[in-house]
Amino acid sequence: MSQYVAPTQTMRFIIEDLVGLENIAGLPGFEEATPDLAAAILDEAAKFAQEVIAPLNRVGDVQGCSVEDGVVRTPDGWREAYRAFCEGGWSTIGAPAEFGGQNMPKLLATAVTEMVQSSNLAFSLLPVLTDGASAALLTAASAELKQKYLPKMISGEWSGTMNLTEPQAGSDIAAIRTRAEPADDGSYRVVGQKIFITYGEHELAENIIHLVLARLPDAPAGVKGISLFVVPKFLVNDDGSLGERNDVRCVSLEHKLGIHGSPTCVMAFGDQGGATGYLVGLPNRGLEYMFIMMNEARFGVGMQGIAIAERAFQQAQAYANERVQGRDAVTGADNVPISAHPDVRRMLLLMQTRTQAARMLAYWVAGQFDVAHAHPDALRRERARQVVDLLIPIVKGWSTEVGNDSTHLGVQIHGGMGFIEETGAAQHLRDARILTIYEGTTGIQANDLLMRKLMRDGGERLMLLLAGMHDDVESLKAIDDKAIAAFVPRLAACISVFENAAWKLIDRARSDVGAGLWVAVPFLTLAGVACGAWMWGKAALAAHRKLGEGEGDAAFHRAQISQAAFYMAHVATQAEGLAATVVEGLTAATEL
Amino acid sequence: MSQYVAPTQTMRFIIEDLVGLENIAGLPGFEEATPDLAAAILDEAAKFAQEVIAPLNRVGDVQGCSVEDGVVRTPDGWREAYRAFCEGGWSTIGAPAEFGGQNMPKLLATAVTEMVQSSNLAFSLLPVLTDGASAALLTAASAELKQKYLPKMISGEWSGTMNLTEPQAGSDIAAIRTRAEPADDGSYRVVGQKIFITYGEHELAENIIHLVLARLPDAPAGVKGISLFVVPKFLVNDDGSLGERNDVRCVSLEHKLGIHGSPTCVMAFGDQGGATGYLVGLPNRGLEYMFIMMNEARFGVGMQGIAIAERAFQQAQAYANERVQGRDAVTGADNVPISAHPDVRRMLLLMQTRTQAARMLAYWVAGQFDVAHAHPDALRRERARQVVDLLIPIVKGWSTEVGNDSTHLGVQIHGGMGFIEETGAAQHLRDARILTIYEGTTGIQANDLLMRKLMRDGGERLMLLLAGMHDDVESLKAIDDKAIAAFVPRLAACISVFENAAWKLIDRARSDVGAGLWVAVPFLTLAGVACGAWMWGKAALAAHRKLGEGEGDAAFHRAQISQAAFYMAHVATQAEGLAATVVEGLTAATEL
Repeated sequence: MSQYVAPTQTMRFIIEDLVGLENIAGLPGFEEATPDLAAAILDEAAKFAQEVIAPLNRVGDVQGCSVEDGVVRTPDGWREAYRAFCEGGWSTIGAPAEFGGQNMPKLLATAVTEMVQSSNLAFSLLPVLTDGASAALLTAASAELKQKYLPKMISGEWSGTMNLTEPQAGSDIAAIRTRAEPADDGSYRVVGQKIFITYGEHELAENIIHLVLARLPDAPAGVKGISLFVVPKFLVNDDGSLGERNDVRCVSLEHKLGIHGSPTCVMAFGDQGGATGYLVGLPNRGLEYMFIMMNEARFGVGMQGIAIAERAFQQAQAYANERVQGRDAVTGADNVPISAHPDVRRMLLLMQTRTQAARMLAYWVAGQFDVAHAHPDALRRERARQVVDLLIPIVKGWSTEVGNDSTHLGVQIHGGMGFIEETGAAQHLRDARILTIYEGTTGIQANDLLMRKLMRDGGERLMLLLAGMHDDVESLKAIDDKAIAAFVPRLAACISVFENAAWKLIDRARSDVGAGLWVAVPFLTLAGVACGAWMWGKAALAAHRKLGEGEGDAAFHRAQISQAAFYMAHVATQAEGLAATVVEGLTAATEL
Repeated sequence: MSQYVAPTQTMRFIIEDLVGLENIAGLPGFEEATPDLAAAILDEAAKFAQEVIAPLNRVGDVQGCSVEDGVVRTPDGWREAYRAFCEGGWSTIGAPAEFGGQNMPKLLATAVTEMVQSSNLAFSLLPVLTDGASAALLTAASAELKQKYLPKMISGEWSGTMNLTEPQAGSDIAAIRTRAEPADDGSYRVVGQKIFITYGEHELAENIIHLVLARLPDAPAGVKGISLFVVPKFLVNDDGSLGERNDVRCVSLEHKLGIHGSPTCVMAFGDQGGATGYLVGLPNRGLEYMFIMMNEARFGVGMQGIAIAERAFQQAQAYANERVQGRDAVTGADNVPISAHPDVRRMLLLMQTRTQAARMLAYWVAGQFDVAHAHPDALRRERARQVVDLLIPIVKGWSTEVGNDSTHLGVQIHGGMGFIEETGAAQHLRDARILTIYEGTTGIQANDLLMRKLMRDGGERLMLLLAGMHDDVESLKAIDDKAIAAFVPRLAACISVFENAAWKLIDRARSDVGAGLWVAVPFLTLAGVACGAWMWGKAALAAHRKLGEGEGDAAFHRAQISQAAFYMAHVATQAEGLAATVVEGLTAATEL
């Protein structure tokens, strides 16, 4: 297994030079996020992730979790690492100051989260889920619930879960059956079974705050009859101290392909008569609240795809530089490291440039989150929110596919050793496999992209995105640089192919929804490839600017331009085929 | 876990109507392979695979193998199943009558092998490796060695292994260090360590015949100094009875990502002074003999990719038809099976049509093997051999990538359940992961395709292949059928794009080998996609003919034409992007 080294140079390049930390730090409330502080936070986070969390990655895979009498045992070292995580304040970076957070921009918090995820995906799910639960409470809970739960969730003393799935209700939340009956004291008695609950039970935090979707008596059928409840593992007294154990327990753990270190629980609510729960927001609005949170959660899973792709890349690169095998086909030199072989270099660059493309897109979206949250101009906030809405399914859907492809290539680069578990490459492949599934499969992201993000507003969000793409292409065309000029036609073609396919798809889906859904995933892939090409265009612009200013690491900036060219030749080239599938697939759908 | 059901209708369609069993059965020596006998063999093989071998697939995964004091324990039921396999004569189908085989065409033997592989990939490796070892002896061994070993290997009483890899010599066989010293009695003392030896030790067969690559004293360095030896686990007396235990043992087993039921051994030869071995053929010609066998072995691994893809498809299809979830986006009907959702149907069809494309290509190549082996006309034999040589790296490289993609999609269709080991979908993903690696990685197949199969003869083999493709396109154009006419332009474009990219690549690689190797894998993928499209064109031709004759299952034949159309829209469309990568990637190589 290779050591994880946080790619801070690339991260800072994206944050500072591509997205523009200065602009974000200029927004009200983010004044403290200076480049110096940002650099310090990234360096400290890198150290913590590399030294404390990364070494537990394999331990977690090998030991996994176990449950006995409802008590879940996590792998060795997990407890100490989680304590260090909380004590270091790593759970508070992006959280609001009002509840004890550091109120840093999401742009910065995202990079920190990526490091934790790259170090140890199974471990990272605990704070990520707590963040998601906090976000739901921030959005929808009463002041009283917020005050009672948020400070300790943000500090990490208590963790959070999301309880959506039931055996008959996976992707289809409308089928939820868990019930909540009102009690005399204003609370509710929650009864039902939930499955696939990540960190549903453990002893790393003092309390676990379950957010549970359930139906009130006489609630309307379907998605409009689902409410959201807080169900704490231990009831919380008015003074904030822990009260009695609630009627909720872990029945069993799943035996999974990967992320063994994170317990995936079957949870029973109300076996002893009813778990005490508290309604969040208004009745029957649970799904709406979950959807707000889901944007964050889907962004977070997209980041997991990028994080595992980075980890797999580093592992493969280390192996390829170390492993001596074969003869250089060009020079004839014997016993070269396999990274000298063209196809191994190609695979490494494919991993590297797609991972960075997905990362640039995600960080750029994080910057738009910050604008949507904090910009003083309402129109700017609204536009940023629209772009975020449009890009979330692409960040989630495409980055997780990139994560899977990269871990697959990572094993391939190792040859036979990649198939041996001790090597560590196979764990990344196994861990990554859930990412295109949870928080909505790739098919569901594609459905969301087409039906909600493109169709509902008649393409308004899409035009906003395309305007940004075209602006950057024009800027690139204006640059006098041979290396950049060589790839701009491919970039422009890629974006234009994406644009045409999008309008054709929207037009066709208006009259034939089934045909549209039939090619929604190829379209999402096309969108990811095109957004990635756009981001590499932005990277080349930023690198060219830095080179012109004579600032920073020139070799790094030149490599950015070369890698942009690689991406255009090896990835952006796929746009036409994907667009052809979107258009020709529409026809074929009617005949099968 | 779903039941495996051998796809005999599709297999017979390919064997009889697409490849043309009649022509193969008309070759000298294959007269017994009548359609009736072929159908009977396929039905019996299906029954055996489904009832005896398939039920052990999960047992093998869960139990795996263990070793104690050099004795390897295989999973429960393995021994009984292997005995039944041998007693049923399943090991003898394609083997020469001279040594007890049934001398059936490879076309037919391939379908039987696919069934065994689909049922239980880990189990199937034992007979497949024995076949490979037998093929090497048939090619190169003396009459005496053949007579001594082949009959019992072909009957399955003894199994075979291939011992190539050493810790420092994986893909690079030139680096082999195992030594063989001549002894006074004409035998050799073999000393060295081999790794990744599949079924290197077990107690399913009475004896294990190891084929070992080693160096004679004073052998030239590199690949021209490697010789091939037979090293039996038990020495064989002149009367054929077993003698003393040879100095070879299993030191340890690998802990692998998949195919847990097959023991992957570290083998020590000569720990007690030297294992007794016998030279096969001439000194220093070992690699050449291995290469002859490797064609067969690579074809066999390509078949494994198809077999696991079929198994994953069946599992996903069964789940998608059973699992009720969500609303039909078109009709609005509630609680439909997920196979009604357009994206799930798309994924199922992608699995199905790519798997069949790869199968048609492999079976067609098997038919060419038979022609190369048995045709009375030397020119016809030679041409068939050339086409086989050209297509083997595509069958191996592309079918195994299809196998990996399909098992990935198979998990995806299961949603969260796919990530749970008990479901069985994850096992296929894990099992498939070795297929793009062993018997030469995809990169090595691509290298072989470009350097040996395209460059060496100045494109002669390629022209032979293209002529066949163009003939079939012309035949399709002449057909008056709306459904076929709709996809022929895409097929023609796909083949033409492949052809142009091939000539450009050959031309460029002549002056710049490194640039050629840089895009060899995208070119191999392009070749696979184009050959698949060609085969679907052949399928449409055959189905149209059957429909015209009013023969057979009309619904099946119409579905073949629809599926051909799906493949063109969803897979053949990718050819242009791949070709663009081959051409533009050539340029980008020089700058990185």
